[in-house]
Amino acid sequence: MPNTNQLPIRPVFIISDRTGVTAGTMSHTLLSQFPNIYFERHTIPFVDADDKVKASIRQINHSYKTHKIRPLVFTSFMDTNFTHEIEKSDGITIDLMEPFIHSLEHHLNADSSHKVGQAHGMSEEHDYMHRIDAINFSMKYDDGVRMGDYDKADIILIGVSRAGKTPTSLYMALHYGLYTANYPLADDDFEKGVLPDALIDSRKRLFGLTIDPMQLHKIRQKRRANSEYSALQQCQREVLQAQQFYKRYRIPHADSTAMSIEELASSIVHRMNLEVSYL
Amino acid sequence: MPNTNQLPIRPVFIISDRTGVTAGTMSHTLLSQFPNIYFERHTIPFVDADDKVKASIRQINHSYKTHKIRPLVFTSFMDTNFTHEIEKSDGITIDLMEPFIHSLEHHLNADSSHKVGQAHGMSEEHDYMHRIDAINFSMKYDDGVRMGDYDKADIILIGVSRAGKTPTSLYMALHYGLYTANYPLADDDFEKGVLPDALIDSRKRLFGLTIDPMQLHKIRQKRRANSEYSALQQCQREVLQAQQFYKRYRIPHADSTAMSIEELASSIVHRMNLEVSYL
Repeated sequence: MPNTNQLPIRPVFIISDRTGVTAGTMSHTLLSQFPNIYFERHTIPFVDADDKVKASIRQINHSYKTHKIRPLVFTSFMDTNFTHEIEKSDGITIDLMEPFIHSLEHHLNADSSHKVGQAHGMSEEHDYMHRIDAINFSMKYDDGVRMGDYDKADIILIGVSRAGKTPTSLYMALHYGLYTANYPLADDDFEKGVLPDALIDSRKRLFGLTIDPMQLHKIRQKRRANSEYSALQQCQREVLQAQQFYKRYRIPHADSTAMSIEELASSIVHRMNLEVSYL
Repeated sequence: MPNTNQLPIRPVFIISDRTGVTAGTMSHTLLSQFPNIYFERHTIPFVDADDKVKASIRQINHSYKTHKIRPLVFTSFMDTNFTHEIEKSDGITIDLMEPFIHSLEHHLNADSSHKVGQAHGMSEEHDYMHRIDAINFSMKYDDGVRMGDYDKADIILIGVSRAGKTPTSLYMALHYGLYTANYPLADDDFEKGVLPDALIDSRKRLFGLTIDPMQLHKIRQKRRANSEYSALQQCQREVLQAQQFYKRYRIPHADSTAMSIEELASSIVHRMNLEVSYL
């Protein structure tokens, strides 16, 4: 990580009439293109009324007075009046919505509804229930606790202990609404030399995770230092044996070592051609 | 949900050199402003080489031939050459990055690095480990299974069974890297009339969830139909008693009934002034 103490500081506000998650992700991606500036981020969500807009402007102007530099202000409002108000502040306003809305209205030959929160419309209740069901399923079928009944699973992640199965499963359930089971490959399976029957029956839904043995060693050391479980040799052997399974059963797989949870999940969805209910 | 069968269909491609998650969220927000069109979305992630760009263009052109309408193509590339290639396809290209990068270069008086994947830089490993620790913590402290040692918890969600504690906890761990415990308020607690000591000791980190009793009744019916647990009267009583706790102990709280998981989580982070490691 660069030593952020030595970088120039630039305050950034992310202001949205909703959660600010979209504007936050978007501005994060954009600002990461300027690695030599340290951005001090403040998110102000749910700014959906005049008094809240005014309060935001006070914060922006206060920041300008304190830091003697105009803060960047990313806005995501459906009501353009709010954007125009923010533009009068001491910040530099970057409207993340309007440029695209105009161009879309043109290309689609349709007026936009300009309504707050359309992104969570009438299907929200159904979506919510579905995602909660997916999360419950994924917790219930975490770590091979329950097996044998993988009928409802959209996907089953396999891999050695600490290869990243649990966070990836939960992300896929939360974000994509996928029923994601996971099963830990362990010495038991490697000694038998075959996958458990329940997995073989669901072979088309298996996806393997692999990981650099040295990284695995580091992760396991944190959990159980100087144990057989965390020994580098043990990690090397397990990873190798898991990879042999993937090869023999032709199981698609990915290396979690240098990938974020988002990247892994997105890549699995894409490669397995999974239908997703969300995003 | 509108009957999507009757809406005109417009194919949409989301093409990114990374996961496509940012571009997906952004385009979802934008397109939701046009509720009278049914957008058929295709995400193509990890388009980071010439041959992958060419393959994407083939898909776009094929869609145009099939549907006789130019698909919308949202792009998020750091290499602008890729964007220019896509612009030559039969789709309508909407570049989500370039307009902002230019304006930011101007305002920041700095060149952007234009590098793929800056958003996941050198702090990724630390970030990843932290989020995994947060997820492990949140699973371990789910549903009041472990109590008494809430020292490491950033936040403790409380509420009646099925009020939305588990998905919100996991989202906060996954997305914000927050150590989120949760504890189910139940008849036991209501009969005693006081919160468990472990919770009282961590009072400043408590956040309550409440829910419309009718909605709760519906959710519980799905889980255990026609039981005492799911009876409307039982739901009404529990919700009321939980709210009395929130009032007596001055616990900030939110109603999960009409909020998405993202909204709840974002709102809790904001109201509790939590420092987040991610986004």
